Parts: sequence; structure tokens; C-alpha cells
Amino acid sequence: VKYLPNVRLPPNVVAVPDLSDAAAGATLLIFVLPHQFLSRLCPQILRAVAPGCRAISLIKGVEFESAEPRLISRLISRLLGGMDVSVLMGANVANEVARDEFCEATVGCSSAESGALWRLVFHRPSLNVTVVRDVAGVELCGALKNVVALGAGFCDGVGYGANTKAAIVRIGVREMQAFCALFFEGVEKDTFFESCGIADLVTTCYGGRNRKCAEAFARRGPGATWEAIEVELLNGQRLQGTLTCQDVHACLLAKGAETQARFPLLEAVYAISFEGRDASTIVKLVR
Amino acid sequence: VKYLPNVRLPPNVVAVPDLSDAAAGATLLIFVLPHQFLSRLCPQILRAVAPGCRAISLIKGVEFESAEPRLISRLISRLLGGMDVSVLMGANVANEVARDEFCEATVGCSSAESGALWRLVFHRPSLNVTVVRDVAGVELCGALKNVVALGAGFCDGVGYGANTKAAIVRIGVREMQAFCALFFEGVEKDTFFESCGIADLVTTCYGGRNRKCAEAFARRGPGATWEAIEVELLNGQRLQGTLTCQDVHACLLAKGAETQARFPLLEAVYAISFEGRDASTIVKLVR
Repeated sequence: VKYLPNVRLPPNVVAVPDLSDAAAGATLLIFVLPHQFLSRLCPQILRAVAPGCRAISLIKGVEFESAEPRLISRLISRLLGGMDVSVLMGANVANEVARDEFCEATVGCSSAESGALWRLVFHRPSLNVTVVRDVAGVELCGALKNVVALGAGFCDGVGYGANTKAAIVRIGVREMQAFCALFFEGVEKDTFFESCGIADLVTTCYGGRNRKCAEAFARRGPGATWEAIEVELLNGQRLQGTLTCQDVHACLLAKGAETQARFPLLEAVYAISFEGRDASTIVKLVR
Repeated sequence: VKYLPNVRLPPNVVAVPDLSDAAAGATLLIFVLPHQFLSRLCPQILRAVAPGCRAISLIKGVEFESAEPRLISRLISRLLGGMDVSVLMGANVANEVARDEFCEATVGCSSAESGALWRLVFHRPSLNVTVVRDVAGVELCGALKNVVALGAGFCDGVGYGANTKAAIVRIGVREMQAFCALFFEGVEKDTFFESCGIADLVTTCYGGRNRKCAEAFARRGPGATWEAIEVELLNGQRLQGTLTCQDVHACLLAKGAETQARFPLLEAVYAISFEGRDASTIVKLVR
């Protein structure tokens, strides 16, 4: 009623308010909640599920700890006693999926068996599910795209043309790839051709709230603050991209100047967002 | 004056009306003209140039012959006695480049030496040039993107959402890769992460005349003809995408049904454009 008005859910979706009841004897768990609740809820879930239970996380976001990205899927796995945890990401916002419009999703799985199983759960003619053996790549795409979208928004705010913006998006994919490879083993370039990669990035850079707020930030020029923009455009909700941008910068800073130099776009987004650099400098990416 | 009003060309660009004079003693040739003129002009050029002369083609398009794509760069090379011919493509429309806005380009070269040389010629802070050793991949991107853009336009015309459109674009990149690999050796997946790939494709699918005309075609529904749309929206100029679409279909048809099945998007664009299939079926891509 609140988030998807006029959408009729199928009868096999049943709301069970008690978590232990909901998870009792479960063989499959699907996580779609703010990750702050995980550490409180997971112990309860673990006590209830069937042996051999598997999980999948649709949670978009990433934790940072000691200047290193930490995957939410690994956090869930740890909290659930080493359970097999896959992830599902991609360009598939709830309202379009609910209208049964054609969308895609990418499952990142740690075993071929889990991948096949989750595809069976989610794939249908209007939701094309591709499976890749790259949890970290799939999961990090969802967080990093928001930082690139800030760059795309700066571009729009300054009034640069379509080719400049396409260049920002493209350089963004490359730096997303490089960032994932810097911190995780087994990240595949091919992952970025999947829905979680270019498709989700393009949607976010051509629509999306991070792009919109960054455009407003650039238009206002010196003195603009994210807080004021969040109050005006998002009713005070916090932007994801600016938070991730700070964490990403902290990670790169900790690796040193040589590493920072390999990420001119991500670093330019940080400098514009938090160090007062002019938004027009988003294109100073080539040395 | 006609195509780039108010743009001042640098003094080292000199117009020489006589082709033999222009090419006399040349060590570098840059081809930017409709390819129909090549067979007439190349013999004249060949007689005039210096030994060891190299060429680069910026000509977007591809010839088809006996249901096989033929690269314009190979045609030029043949007409110039086997000269080393590279290509330059990407999201870099003339008016944005002329305003010195940040853009990118991809050079596809057949030798590392040529690649380094052409980068020296074109690269500057506002034009980021990447070199790849994949002439066919770079060159075919420029033609195939227009077919995908028709699919994106159908999507817009039917009124599908942003995630559906992103899916079409993503599936488009995958089929572009597969099409190139079907007909040429040495096509690299990485090429499609370059400006000639995703950047040019995104620009074309979110702006661009092929997208616009396909949107109109879908809006009009049964009875719409490309000829009428070309008259109304393009002053009678011919669309590139519909021509390429027919050639691509002929290539796939000649390879047989199994091959056709591997290109559901390219084939759906053909069926909607030329076989009266409804534009809404652009999303029937999953079996």
C-alpha cells in the first residue's frame, strides 16, 4: 500500500511477523533489509533454519572498516555460521519489476550449485537472471555506481554534452573494475557487462537521486552543501553516493598516492564533493 | 560556416582543393568522407604519398558483401596497395569536440607502432585517446550500435521504463561482441569497454536520430513506414540503423537458425522494423 500501491502480490507471498516462525525450517533465505539490523536478527534466524539452508542478499551497500571494503554477504555468512551466501543485484527497481516490465538481474554466487538454484528461484520471461561466479564484483557494483553517478550529475550541472557524460560513465566502469580488483580476488571483467554493471550504472547515471542531487550541487556552485540539498530534494534522507565516496576515498588514500592516481574519476568526485573543488574539473582526468 | 558555425579552426588546418597536391609526400592520411568515394580517390592518393605512409579511417559504417561484413579500413588498405590502416571511433561528435569539451576516442590499430603514432597525433587533455589492437572490434561497434539504438527507441516508444531500456542496451553490447567474434578473428571483449563500445552506444541509445526515429515508428504502430518517418523527422535523409539492420539480418540468416537464436535482440529489431512485428515484443528476448 505504501511503496507499491495498486500492486497485487501473488498468494504465495505471506507476511509472517514473527522472525523465528518465518525462518522455521527454511532452506532458502532472501535478505532485503537495511544491513544495520543484521547483527541483531541473524542469530534468531540461524536457530530456526533447516540444515543446509542457503541465503542470498539483495542488500545494496558496502561496509568499510579500517579503510577496506567489507561485503555485506560475508557479514551475513559470518553471522549465520558460515552459510553459503550469494548476492542478487542489477537494474531492477521494485516498481518496474512489480509492473512485470522486462528487467534483468545478476546473481553472484560462490558455488555453481547455488547459482543454478537461485536462477531457478528468480528467472522468468520478464526477469532475465544471469549467474556469475563473482560475489565481490557483483556486490560492489551496487555501491560504487552511486559514486560514478555523482560525477555524471556534476557533468549535467555544469552543462557538459552527451559525449562528455558518456566518457565519465565509461571511465567510471573502468575504475569500478579496478577498485574491485584492488581489494578482492577473483573479480571478473565480464561481471561489468552484466546487469549489475553497465545496466545498473547507466540507469543510475541517467536517472536516479545521486545524479539529481549532484546536478543541483554543481549548479549552486561555491557554498553548496549536501545537507541543504538532501533537505530540499530528498526530504532530509541521506544520499548513498556521498557516503560511499568518502569511504572509497579513505580506502584509496590508505593505499597511497600511486594508487590514488589510478582512480582520477573517483578522486575527482571526492575533491568536488568534499574539498571545494569546482564541479567543472570533473573532466580533468587525463594527465 | 555550414557545419560548425562560430568555430575557429587552428592555423595548421589548411584546405587544399587538389587531391594530388594535398596528398603529395604525405606520411599520414586521415580518412573522413563517405566511403562511396574511396575507390575513385584512392588511386590518386596512392600515387602522391611518401613511402611508408600510414592511414587512419574515421569513417563510420560497414559494407556487406555476400552476407559478410567488410571493413572499410580493409577496403582502404587494399585500394592503397596494402597500406597500414588503423581506425578511430568513439563518442566524439564534431560539435562537442570543436567546442573543446572533454571527449574520448578509441584507436584500433594493426601494429603497436601505428597505435603509438596515432595516439601522438590525436591525444590531448580534452580528447582522451585509448589504443587497442583490434581494428575489427573498434570499427564494427560504430555500425552495430545504430541497430541497438533502434531497439532502445522502440522501448521508449512503447513506454517501457528505465530498467527495461538499460537491459536492451546491455543485451545489445553482448550481441555486438558476439557478432564481431562471429566474423572476425582477434576481437577483444575489452574493446567494448572503450569509448567506441559502451560510451558511443549509450550516447546513441539515449540521444541520437536512430533512437528518435524508432521511437516515432513504435508510437505510430501498424502501418508506420521508415520512409515516412525519414521524410518527417530527417528531411528525407536515410537512417543508418535500418540499413545496417537489414545487412546484419542477412548475415545471420545465412549462418542459419542456430546462429540467429544467439542474437535475439538484433533479430527482434529486424522483425519489428521489417516484418510487421509489434514494437512491444522488443522485450521477448528470453526463452
